[in-house]
Amino acid sequence: MEFPSKLIENAVAELSKLPGIGRKTALRLALHLLKAETETTSSLAEALAKMRFDIRYCNTCFNISDTEQCSICANPLRDHSTVCVVSDIRDVIAIENTGQYQGVYHVLGGVISPIEGIGPSDLHIEPLMNRMQGEESEVKEVILAISPTMEGDTTAFYLTRRLREFPEVHISSIARGIPVGGELEYADEITLGRSIVERQRQAR
Amino acid sequence: MEFPSKLIENAVAELSKLPGIGRKTALRLALHLLKAETETTSSLAEALAKMRFDIRYCNTCFNISDTEQCSICANPLRDHSTVCVVSDIRDVIAIENTGQYQGVYHVLGGVISPIEGIGPSDLHIEPLMNRMQGEESEVKEVILAISPTMEGDTTAFYLTRRLREFPEVHISSIARGIPVGGELEYADEITLGRSIVERQRQAR
Repeated sequence: MEFPSKLIENAVAELSKLPGIGRKTALRLALHLLKAETETTSSLAEALAKMRFDIRYCNTCFNISDTEQCSICANPLRDHSTVCVVSDIRDVIAIENTGQYQGVYHVLGGVISPIEGIGPSDLHIEPLMNRMQGEESEVKEVILAISPTMEGDTTAFYLTRRLREFPEVHISSIARGIPVGGELEYADEITLGRSIVERQRQAR
Repeated sequence: MEFPSKLIENAVAELSKLPGIGRKTALRLALHLLKAETETTSSLAEALAKMRFDIRYCNTCFNISDTEQCSICANPLRDHSTVCVVSDIRDVIAIENTGQYQGVYHVLGGVISPIEGIGPSDLHIEPLMNRMQGEESEVKEVILAISPTMEGDTTAFYLTRRLREFPEVHISSIARGIPVGGELEYADEITLGRSIVERQRQAR
């Protein structure tokens, strides 16, 4: 695809570096911006640059934050004795959106993946250990909320071993099972199997 | 969906103004930018702003251009007696990609659409008339290459009437018919009907 203008060509090349955006979509986006007010483009460009350059990460949990401590860690009403370990900021947002969790988080920044060259030292695992050590630590439970992929399971396994250092701390993982609204016959065998083995007794 | 950072919130809000990008996709894009080098974001933001503010339109055909005249209009090897009228820059790119057209273009900048409040005066129709008038005009054929939607057909009809002013100029429209590789049984009735009425005699 050849473009009549180097400016468009550049914009399309940059846009199509984004995940899930090919050259045709990039061109559609570029032409949309050309048709819209100039302000649309300038505020988009500004918001992206501002986000990238001014973003900070919480000193405690590595969640994204506009301040040194994120709003969750800084909130005295949250339960600071329960730490939910997730791989990604997106997981924090997803769990927060449920409105079901009152504890705090710890964002690893990824999962252990030998293929991609990501080892334990590339993740925020030591800060988690530091967070749990010392007299003033109030952590009583660590919830491992890591996606059950191969890499995720490896990471959870590694963390479980490291957390043996703190025998007084409970370790749990999020419940696996058939999604609410999901149909049994379409569930994969491993999930269905686990959901039977780890069946929950109903109150009666 | 609540975000832990106003900066991310802004970026997501701006990104999701783009066509076909919802809040979830916008968040994915924003987090991708946060993980990538800062340079990725700055060159994206720069390319977009540069495109929007420095773009120019060809004085003759209203194609996008980095200069006063686009590379097609400025090319003496193109056939300047044949003008292909299209609604959009994307159409120019599509036709150029076929490598089958040697003439020049005229970009209307849209189609007549009473519902969206776009009348003939909002399109580059007068410049087309001016282009054809005068002693030095060399236009011998106008090809109407406008999508056969209701608005497109209205626009083509309007143009045909306006072009009666130039009885010596041929007016043609792109061929309609079954797409190459298309199956007869799946073609819509109007296309199939026209493709029979306007059948092409084969050389033998």
